[in-house]
Amino acid sequence: MSRSPVEPVRPHVVIIGGGFAGLATARGLARSSARVTLVDRRNFHLFQPLLYQVATGGLSPAEISAPLRGILSRQPNVSVRLDEVQSVDLERRAVILRDSTLTYDLLVVAAGATHHYFGHDEWRQHAPGLKTIEDATRVRARLLDAFERAERSDDPVEQETALTFVLVGAGPTGVELAGALGELAHWTLRRDFRRIDPSRARILLVDGAPRVLPALSEASSAAAAHSLERLGVEIWLDSLVTAIGPDEVTIRRPDGERTVAAGTVLWASGVAPSPLAASLLEGAGLEPGPGGRVPVEPDLTLPGHPEVLVLGDLAAAADAAGKPLPGVAPVAMQQGRYAGRLLSRRLRGQSTPPFRYRDKGQLAVIGRAAAVAEIGRARFSGYPAWVLWLLIHILYLAGFTNRLLVLIEWGYSYLTRRRGARLITRSAEDSPPEEP
Amino acid sequence: MSRSPVEPVRPHVVIIGGGFAGLATARGLARSSARVTLVDRRNFHLFQPLLYQVATGGLSPAEISAPLRGILSRQPNVSVRLDEVQSVDLERRAVILRDSTLTYDLLVVAAGATHHYFGHDEWRQHAPGLKTIEDATRVRARLLDAFERAERSDDPVEQETALTFVLVGAGPTGVELAGALGELAHWTLRRDFRRIDPSRARILLVDGAPRVLPALSEASSAAAAHSLERLGVEIWLDSLVTAIGPDEVTIRRPDGERTVAAGTVLWASGVAPSPLAASLLEGAGLEPGPGGRVPVEPDLTLPGHPEVLVLGDLAAAADAAGKPLPGVAPVAMQQGRYAGRLLSRRLRGQSTPPFRYRDKGQLAVIGRAAAVAEIGRARFSGYPAWVLWLLIHILYLAGFTNRLLVLIEWGYSYLTRRRGARLITRSAEDSPPEEP
Repeated sequence: MSRSPVEPVRPHVVIIGGGFAGLATARGLARSSARVTLVDRRNFHLFQPLLYQVATGGLSPAEISAPLRGILSRQPNVSVRLDEVQSVDLERRAVILRDSTLTYDLLVVAAGATHHYFGHDEWRQHAPGLKTIEDATRVRARLLDAFERAERSDDPVEQETALTFVLVGAGPTGVELAGALGELAHWTLRRDFRRIDPSRARILLVDGAPRVLPALSEASSAAAAHSLERLGVEIWLDSLVTAIGPDEVTIRRPDGERTVAAGTVLWASGVAPSPLAASLLEGAGLEPGPGGRVPVEPDLTLPGHPEVLVLGDLAAAADAAGKPLPGVAPVAMQQGRYAGRLLSRRLRGQSTPPFRYRDKGQLAVIGRAAAVAEIGRARFSGYPAWVLWLLIHILYLAGFTNRLLVLIEWGYSYLTRRRGARLITRSAEDSPPEEP
Repeated sequence: MSRSPVEPVRPHVVIIGGGFAGLATARGLARSSARVTLVDRRNFHLFQPLLYQVATGGLSPAEISAPLRGILSRQPNVSVRLDEVQSVDLERRAVILRDSTLTYDLLVVAAGATHHYFGHDEWRQHAPGLKTIEDATRVRARLLDAFERAERSDDPVEQETALTFVLVGAGPTGVELAGALGELAHWTLRRDFRRIDPSRARILLVDGAPRVLPALSEASSAAAAHSLERLGVEIWLDSLVTAIGPDEVTIRRPDGERTVAAGTVLWASGVAPSPLAASLLEGAGLEPGPGGRVPVEPDLTLPGHPEVLVLGDLAAAADAAGKPLPGVAPVAMQQGRYAGRLLSRRLRGQSTPPFRYRDKGQLAVIGRAAAVAEIGRARFSGYPAWVLWLLIHILYLAGFTNRLLVLIEWGYSYLTRRRGARLITRSAEDSPPEEP
């Protein structure tokens, strides 16, 4: 952009990533003097914590997404750019895109995380994870296909394999997925088949930790485990996956190694920061922080580069006690709001105290009307926790129609235990386009 | 299935296809003595006439689909089989599936139609059509990507190419798609871009016929054309597409050939019956009817095979005056209901008079609050026709939540001209899965 002498020089803020952190930063710059460019490779903001609802047919992709341009259309100082960031050149203050380059005065990197298979990338094809809309529709197709495969088969061994589901990772995603899958098998699909009983499905939740939801208290873990077991979920703790093949998982349990014939394996375990982390670490000459994340100063800037902020799942930020902050939506949102405030103030020549995370509590839902919640010292589970979860998620969903639609979908499925979005759609890879 | 001596012999009816015709047949057999197997390669019933709404971001795939198992769960004599029919062996009375075979006593073939590129299959990649959910999400991504491409470009020629859309075929699908695209460009995306004006988009509707919607009266055609022009759609009639390449279409107009630089070309023209037509024609020793369809007796049975009924887009049925019936949803629904009645009666030893199509009218919608309708001798357009269209489509949508959700989506987009489902999602073919 040419800077004409009559126009005041407006600093250019580039934000990489339209997730919780990037979007909150952009919104926080609404009244600032900055010209903002938000770069994302997707044209929509995604409410990631509800991806498991798409994966289990409860919600449609568009109900947990909102077009970035739509969200930001009334904020004229922001332009959205649909492109893929290749790397960041800290020295030239430039973001390298596919075919072009964006120079910045201030940079916010909030590119998020992807799956991490602990060095076993060959597991990816057998055990898909849940980070994108495409992941969710792929998992949905796998889950529903498993029941179809069992119904189609005459071989009891194949039926049993098809109806065995292994979920790797008993954090929030794995627990919520297991709960939703339990609902699906025991209630939603109950009358749908003629040759199999879907409630015979075996759902195995596997984790190396000694309890589910290790970030919560032991009481909440126990409540969650109890709710899961009521939905028929088998929980294997202190158990590590050592091999994943087609229709097969090997798990090392405290009492020895077992191989389970399972038609469906889903990955809800390790995450790794976006590849941009490597570009930033190299450019700034830094060693990676815990989990490969990028170390940041207390004000979330990149050490040695006060013009660059790193947020969300990409940043190795810590709380006041030095404990690393988890890669969850509330952290990303608070960091985004902080970044917007810090940059606005800096453009006016004001300084800002360091970022402090306010832990507002933990919540996980396990099927219909069952959840666990910890807010401050309050711990509760069951129906009240579920209602709280519902309210918070409805409140945070971006975009007005989505909220209303989601509320109706949930109300309906609460009353009927049905799930409307049970579509098996295929990507081009799985099946060729239909021939004439 | 073994037939034990104590159980009465229940005739096996196989229905191929869970579209309007197949589903109506299955429902019509609810109180019959038949054991019914409904085979479809998809696990859901699709409300095809609204696919263009998915393609233009107005509705989500799940809002115009309903799981077949869910629809039929309370009809215990029907089992759904998710499989792909390879061919029909009329002599052995067997339907050949991917890995197995189903024998039948009575067969209903309602496998529908696919696109037909008039011998130019190489056009398929440049000009996708609109028959499946995947088609619709692919078209949605192309349409939205076109605006992104223009916004990203600095080259005015490329911007103009990106913002030129050619729709081939001015039947109901082409007209409704053109109207929805006009709405999208002029209203929905109005504030979304910073470097381009989406309303500058050029939308070209091309057809070889002398008017749009040739199945309707000339007055209705004129009203539809007028509504389209108000949305900025350019209509080229008596015009044939002679070549389609990347970013280019060649069109033969009455005054000579023109090549248009167009980033997006969509196919809403020829259809051909499913490949099963060939299998039936060969097996029965018949010549194909108009458009490659299968000729049928007045009771929709295959000539020489009273145990086989052919319905919907696959059948070359005619009205009382001998005029071929069009490949539209009302014909398929009425034929399906007729087939259910005929088979139920035949199982009780009763005969049924021939099928007669009752033309309840024609309807096409062109953007917000604009439509044309012809019911009997009544012809109307504008707001009343649009309300009628809305009521009929809400009424026919299968599944209760869908109806409510669609009503809300439409109410919301009517009031705000927003479209909630503007997601650019990619199939595995277009972009590799994200790397860690």
